[in-house]
Amino acid sequence: MQATFTVSTRRAREVVDITRQVAAVLERAGITEGLCTVFVRHATAAVVINENADPGFRADLVTALDGLFPEGVWEHDKVDDNGAAHLKAALLGPSEVIPVTGGRLALGTWQGIALVECDGPRERQVIVDIR
Amino acid sequence: MQATFTVSTRRAREVVDITRQVAAVLERAGITEGLCTVFVRHATAAVVINENADPGFRADLVTALDGLFPEGVWEHDKVDDNGAAHLKAALLGPSEVIPVTGGRLALGTWQGIALVECDGPRERQVIVDIR
Amino acid sequence: MQATFTVSTRRAREVVDITRQVAAVLERAGITEGLCTVFVRHATAAVVINENADPGFRADLVTALDGLFPEGVWEHDKVDDNGAAHLKAALLGPSEVIPVTGGRLALGTWQGIALVECDGPRERQVIVDIR
Repeated sequence: MQATFTVSTRRAREVVDITRQVAAVLERAGITEGLCTVFVRHATAAVVINENADPGFRADLVTALDGLFPEGVWEHDKVDDNGAAHLKAALLGPSEVIPVTGGRLALGTWQGIALVECDGPRERQVIVDIR
Repeated sequence: MQATFTVSTRRAREVVDITRQVAAVLERAGITEGLCTVFVRHATAAVVINENADPGFRADLVTALDGLFPEGVWEHDKVDDNGAAHLKAALLGPSEVIPVTGGRLALGTWQGIALVECDGPRERQVIVDIR
Repeated sequence: MQATFTVSTRRAREVVDITRQVAAVLERAGITEGLCTVFVRHATAAVVINENADPGFRADLVTALDGLFPEGVWEHDKVDDNGAAHLKAALLGPSEVIPVTGGRLALGTWQGIALVECDGPRERQVIVDIR
């Protein structure tokens, strides 16, 4: 089954935990074993899996991406002025796949699923596919 | 079902849109809902999803990867002189998974699927799995 | 089917080939065509696919990641002193998906599956899902 939910981001660049929304779709799907795919339908946002407890880590990810991809030096900036955002999203990728075991996401203790906003604030559509 | 197609790259480093080839495999598969996995069978090429319209972005991705991984400073260069190409491919990864919804790839408006050539020109084999 | 195996890493930062362990799970699954998903259940380790023959490349990947994410400058270091390890793992991602064709992993000649340890030595749990 598939379901879509929306994330309204609040800043230009931020990391938003979406583990609860994904887990809610899994609960409705009601499967015991399988795969859960999370996909964001945008070219300036990404999905990552990492540290779920410390907000400091989410700030670090924004800082690190800013360091790797400076603003204002890209060809694409002539078209849309968000070249760095596209590069960050391309590098991180729009999706993650998580095994489902015993009816639950088989995440480790410290792993959460997060949407990475690179050019917000915007409404972001996230598809969850469970099978 | 699975299908393989070949991409003949023309330069040492370039980004080649392959959305049309992947969509053609999906059309033959004829499924309504599922997952489409795109996998490149090489260690110096990658698959990414991002901006599909502006060729400037494709040039930016090449430039950005060159900046992150300089040439000629790697252990692997002693063996094969393409260490930077392997690192770029490892970071981007060989595959992407895209939900299929209503018989179509559930890509966002600006998302395309691209092969990233890091050590060409070469013939690159791409597997598409749809289920 | 799903199976879990453990990798005992030996160093703080290293790349460990796990292709053989994944292929052993596939053999037990006994399917001809499908997908093999490899997922590490930790926020300071990752799974990548790349060069399987040259140990120099594995050293290069550690060096390259160290260059992109310096130690000791992150918010998360105030909590757990391993901010760089989390960033490396987030960027590389915890999983890879490999097509299964003719009963085998459809890897290219030079592609292997590797666990990237970013904060070891530790015991790392890897889930393999085949369907």
